[in-house]
Amino acid sequence: MTAGGNAEPVGSCPTPLPPGEAVLLGHGSGGRLTSELIDGIFLDRFANPELARLGDSAVVEVGGLRLAFTTDAFVVTPAFFPGSDIGALSVNGTVNDLAMVGAAPLFLSAAFILEEGLLVEDLTTISDSMAEACRVAGVTLVTGDTKVVERGGADGIFITTSGVGLVPDGLDLGPDRLLAGDVILVSGPVGTHGVAVMSQRAGIGFDVDIVSDTAPLTGLVEEVLAAAEVHCLRDATRGGLATVLCELASASQVRLLLREADVPVLDAVRAACATLGLDPLYVANEGVCVAAVAGSDADAALRAARSHPLGARAAIVGLVESGPEGVQLETAVGTRRPIHMLAGEALPRIC
Amino acid sequence: MTAGGNAEPVGSCPTPLPPGEAVLLGHGSGGRLTSELIDGIFLDRFANPELARLGDSAVVEVGGLRLAFTTDAFVVTPAFFPGSDIGALSVNGTVNDLAMVGAAPLFLSAAFILEEGLLVEDLTTISDSMAEACRVAGVTLVTGDTKVVERGGADGIFITTSGVGLVPDGLDLGPDRLLAGDVILVSGPVGTHGVAVMSQRAGIGFDVDIVSDTAPLTGLVEEVLAAAEVHCLRDATRGGLATVLCELASASQVRLLLREADVPVLDAVRAACATLGLDPLYVANEGVCVAAVAGSDADAALRAARSHPLGARAAIVGLVESGPEGVQLETAVGTRRPIHMLAGEALPRIC
Repeated sequence: MTAGGNAEPVGSCPTPLPPGEAVLLGHGSGGRLTSELIDGIFLDRFANPELARLGDSAVVEVGGLRLAFTTDAFVVTPAFFPGSDIGALSVNGTVNDLAMVGAAPLFLSAAFILEEGLLVEDLTTISDSMAEACRVAGVTLVTGDTKVVERGGADGIFITTSGVGLVPDGLDLGPDRLLAGDVILVSGPVGTHGVAVMSQRAGIGFDVDIVSDTAPLTGLVEEVLAAAEVHCLRDATRGGLATVLCELASASQVRLLLREADVPVLDAVRAACATLGLDPLYVANEGVCVAAVAGSDADAALRAARSHPLGARAAIVGLVESGPEGVQLETAVGTRRPIHMLAGEALPRIC
Repeated sequence: MTAGGNAEPVGSCPTPLPPGEAVLLGHGSGGRLTSELIDGIFLDRFANPELARLGDSAVVEVGGLRLAFTTDAFVVTPAFFPGSDIGALSVNGTVNDLAMVGAAPLFLSAAFILEEGLLVEDLTTISDSMAEACRVAGVTLVTGDTKVVERGGADGIFITTSGVGLVPDGLDLGPDRLLAGDVILVSGPVGTHGVAVMSQRAGIGFDVDIVSDTAPLTGLVEEVLAAAEVHCLRDATRGGLATVLCELASASQVRLLLREADVPVLDAVRAACATLGLDPLYVANEGVCVAAVAGSDADAALRAARSHPLGARAAIVGLVESGPEGVQLETAVGTRRPIHMLAGEALPRIC
C-alpha cells in the first residue's frame, strides 16, 4: 500500500492509534505518521503478502502474467502550479509507480471528485493536460468516474488514478532487496516539485523560475534496467529522498550511507529551501527516482541514466553498508549523523 | 467511462459545455448532465474505443488475457447509513462493475482522501467493513494510497476503489448489444439504497427499517450467465433503473418497454418514496442489476436469478421492441408514456 505514490513508510515499530484520536495532516505526509496509520489500521485488516510489501505498485499474477497494479489520489493545491497541473501530475504519478516495479504502463483509470462551482474551463485544461501526459507516457485511459460534491465538500478537484502494467519476466524489484555493496543512484535534482508548488501557494516569486519536475520515468528506468543489475527502484515523492531511504533501510534491514555533497539540487531550489526553511532532502519530487544498484554496475547505471534527458543530472549519492539498520548522512564537512523519516507535515497537499 | 459505477449516460447529442460555466451537483447525478460533462470534456480527449463504450468496466487485452478494469469514487454522505457504510459500499460497487462484464473480481486498490479531524475510530470501522466486504466478495486488496486534506478541504472520507478481474472467454456483454426480442430482468427490488441513505441524512425514521441493499452481485451474475444467453448487464446505481434503461436504449438504438407494475419495489420503500416525493425508478441501488436476456431464455434467466439469495425477488420487467429509440413506460393502468434519463440531481452523494 503506497501512501502517496511512493513515500511508503515501512516502519518496524508502529505506535498503535488510540481510539478517540483524530486524523492529522501529518498522517498524509508520507512520513512516520502515515506509517503508523497504515500499519495500525490497514495492514492487519487487508493482510496479504503483496500489500505488506508496500511497494509503489503491487505485482500480482493473473493467468501466468505478472501485472503491476497501483493507485494514487491527487489532492495537490493549487491545482495549477509552475510547470504543470494536477492533471499531468495524476497521470505521471501513477505511470511512475508502475515504472518502479519495471512495468511499462498499459492502462489507466481516472476518478474525479469535483467541487460544485469548479470552472468547466479549468476542468477542460486539466483534462487536456492529462491527455497529453497519457500520450507522452504511451498509456491509454480506458475507464473513469465522475462525482460532484457540494460547495465546501471538497477543494476544487481531486483525481485518483489507477494503473495496470506488465512486469517483465525475471524482474523482481522491491524495497526489501537491497544488499550491502549496492550503490544508491538518484535520477535527478531533488526538491524541485515541492518548492514549485510551495512557491505558488505562498505567492512567493523567486528570481529564477522553479517548475515542477513531473514527468514519466518509464524511459529512464528502461535504460537503467537494461544496463545494470538493479535491486530496487523508488519514486521519491512525499517525504522526499531522505524518507525514501529510511523506508528502504528498514525494509531491507540494512544501513545506508547518504553523501550530502553528492545529492543533486538545483541552485534555485537550494536557495528557495533556505528561504522557506526546508531541507531539500525531505521535499517531494515527481520526476525523480532512487535506484539501488549492484556496486559493480554503478558506472553502467549512471551512464545509462545520464543517457536519458530526464537523467542528465543523475548521481550516485550513497551506498549500502553492513551495519545496524538505518540511514547515515555524511555531511558536506565530513561528519556523520543519523537521519530519519519525515516526522510531521512540512508541505501538506503537495501531490 | 462510468459515472458512478454504472449509471453512465451514453447521450447521442450532448450539449457542449460553454467556457465560464461552472460544475453543478447535477453533473454528478449519473443523468443527463453527467452525460454532457463526459461527452463534452472527457470522451474527445481520451478517445479510444474502450472508453467510448462507456461500460461499467473497460475490457482490455493483455498478453492474450481479457482483463476487466474499473474505478469508482465514493463520496456518500453520511459515511454510515442504515445497513452499511462507505467502506463496504466502495468494495461492492467496484466488484459489481466487474461483475457487469461477467468478470470475477481478482484484485482491488483503495485510495483514501481523509479530512483532518476524522476520527480514527470511524476509519477503523470503515476499514473493518471494507475487509469484510472483500472477504465476502473473494477479492484481495493489494495496493492503496492515503492522503489527508485540511479541515474543510473534504467531507470526512472519500474512497476511490479500482478493480481488476478476468473476463471469461467468449463473453461479450455491452450496453450496445441489446436486440429486439430480448427481455429485461431486474435482479431485485429497486430504490432501497437511495431511500436508506436519504432517510439517514434527513433524520427521517420510517416505521419499517429500510437498509441499503449494497452487496456483491458476482454470484448472482454467474448463475444467470450459466443459465441464459445474456447480452448486457448493468448495475442500476446513480440515476436508478429508469436512467440505466435510457442509456441502454440509446447505446443499442432500440426501444425498451418497461412495465411499471412488474418492477419490484419494497412496500416500505414505495411508502418512503411517496413521502419524500421520489420515483423509485430513479432512485439508486447498490445491489441490483439489470440484464438484457434473449427472449427464449427469459424463464431460465429468471429461475437462475431467483435461485440466488440476492435474486429472490428478481422479475422480468420489460422487453426490447423494434421501433424508434427510447424507453416507454407502461403504467399500472395500462397507458404508455416515454421516460427519460434523470435530468437534475434529486439525491446528491448517494454513493
